[in-house]
Amino acid sequence: MKQSYNHGGEVYGKNICLDFSANINPLLLPEGVKRAVSDNIEKYCRYPDDHCTRLREAIASVKGISPDWVLCGNGAADIIYRYALAVKASKVLIPAPTFSEYEKAFALAGAEICYAALREETGFSLEENILDKLDRADVVVLCNPNNPVGNLAERDLIEKILVTVEAEGKRLFVDECFMELAGCEAEYSLMSCIAKHPALLIAKAFTKTYAMAGLRLGYGISSDTELLSRMKEAGAPWSVSGTAQEAGIAALRETEYLARAVEQIKIEREYLTKELTRLGYQVYPSQANYLMFRAEEELYQSLLKKGVLVRQCGNYKGLGNRYYRICVGLHEDNKKLIHIMQE
Amino acid sequence: MKQSYNHGGEVYGKNICLDFSANINPLLLPEGVKRAVSDNIEKYCRYPDDHCTRLREAIASVKGISPDWVLCGNGAADIIYRYALAVKASKVLIPAPTFSEYEKAFALAGAEICYAALREETGFSLEENILDKLDRADVVVLCNPNNPVGNLAERDLIEKILVTVEAEGKRLFVDECFMELAGCEAEYSLMSCIAKHPALLIAKAFTKTYAMAGLRLGYGISSDTELLSRMKEAGAPWSVSGTAQEAGIAALRETEYLARAVEQIKIEREYLTKELTRLGYQVYPSQANYLMFRAEEELYQSLLKKGVLVRQCGNYKGLGNRYYRICVGLHEDNKKLIHIMQE
Repeated sequence: MKQSYNHGGEVYGKNICLDFSANINPLLLPEGVKRAVSDNIEKYCRYPDDHCTRLREAIASVKGISPDWVLCGNGAADIIYRYALAVKASKVLIPAPTFSEYEKAFALAGAEICYAALREETGFSLEENILDKLDRADVVVLCNPNNPVGNLAERDLIEKILVTVEAEGKRLFVDECFMELAGCEAEYSLMSCIAKHPALLIAKAFTKTYAMAGLRLGYGISSDTELLSRMKEAGAPWSVSGTAQEAGIAALRETEYLARAVEQIKIEREYLTKELTRLGYQVYPSQANYLMFRAEEELYQSLLKKGVLVRQCGNYKGLGNRYYRICVGLHEDNKKLIHIMQE
Repeated sequence: MKQSYNHGGEVYGKNICLDFSANINPLLLPEGVKRAVSDNIEKYCRYPDDHCTRLREAIASVKGISPDWVLCGNGAADIIYRYALAVKASKVLIPAPTFSEYEKAFALAGAEICYAALREETGFSLEENILDKLDRADVVVLCNPNNPVGNLAERDLIEKILVTVEAEGKRLFVDECFMELAGCEAEYSLMSCIAKHPALLIAKAFTKTYAMAGLRLGYGISSDTELLSRMKEAGAPWSVSGTAQEAGIAALRETEYLARAVEQIKIEREYLTKELTRLGYQVYPSQANYLMFRAEEELYQSLLKKGVLVRQCGNYKGLGNRYYRICVGLHEDNKKLIHIMQE
């Protein structure tokens, strides 16, 4: 089977000491989640609850919404694919650059992809002119904060997009997988629009927020319960393991861990931005737990030789091999990275 | 979200003491698998190996094939859906009755379903006349042993089907998820045809064999590596959790556990067949870790009231609510079931 390397976190078969390529919480798995995985081990012989009832109730309670508006998936990627297969869009508008799986999922579902190019001059930010492109597509996809740049789109602008597409019977998919770690849910999340706007679906991930990438857990939120039912049917049953369900319920209690992560990420993102700028690299403004900078193409290989894995952005539409994304790690690791880059 | 109950193992929200509805190994999770899940817990913060390299190598080594011929999935159900989306069949031939997910997966992929009705008079066995129906479809799906009946199709007949479809540029999908627990891989599995017949894909599951239903792990085997690549792309990345990969590698070492399970299942299947027959029910010949019998429609509710869950076969095409499937449990549980049914 052909192996393609399109994502971060592909450390397998390489000799990696420092992985900056995957955007996960630098505090790693919370102790409470580890305990939940181990303590429930006798249950894993049974089929998992295909409706994730307890987990959906726990999510709904934290987010202040109805459990009927939550669909859990085998990572946020599963939600993206089920959405693409369920909405049966003929044309989809996707900003460029952004996470590559939207395009892959909609292409699998037979949709045509139109791109809204983000301009480097504005730090690849989402601009008002996207409103002129909305009539090109029946589904609009946004990632907020965007991946790989880490910048946030203005809430007002996204709400304008939502109202416009909804008025035309179209849909908006907003990937907020990195919103919690950016610590800006209150100001930037569209969660408060869910009840009034069934045209909106928000994707969220435990994967990144609680460093549960190996356990696989994400979810989608929408008040269009008929769409959620179709998404449930648009893929294999039992897609969320019993392990992930127990881990997710435990993770939602980790409020102190999450607050600590948000605080450290903010400090360390500023540190990395300052140091990379000092080294002469162009760093793009980010409010996320990762950031993008521009460097020479050879940087990837020379870091790899030293056991450091970063995410080269060559396969992001609108970027190239001179763009790099790194996650914000713990201070000691960030210092090591800067030290190695300085050499 | 509408909740539909279409499968076994749906114990959640019910008051169940004895679950005979899910076909898992009655010895439950092997100790070695539990240890592997716990011992590797620190790794679950990382993205899993999307290529499942170590797990594929372990499977290949046990099955005596190339790791390139193995694709792992989030349960065998994930393999079924990826196959349906990747082969892009226009018509699919499926026996009736059989497992309902084949039909659902191919319908999602836009294929038309033709049924090959199995006759009750022959114990719902696969008959030679299926050869006359092969030209109706570009993919043929078989489940061996079949679900929910538990009977095996003759190897000669399946090989005839394989040779015929391959000669016409068509494909054969054989679900052997219950073959290991039936203890008849040597005589009945098509594994030895894989190398010579790229038109064949075999689906296998750890879920049932090692009672890992809550951990989710299945795989597909085919020498058509181009098809496996397309199946890999026909769904979300990272579909196999790190937990499942570690559990799977550990499970493959459990040869003594598996031999013990096969032996006990054989004895207990004979016990259940004898006792159900004695109670006046028609029991259909099974060589699997479950069996089907015919009883009154009311049996389901009266057992449920006593905390016993069985699988009523009303939503299997070609069956109805008078047919029941039960898994073969441990002797003590089987005795309890018979005792309760006797009342």
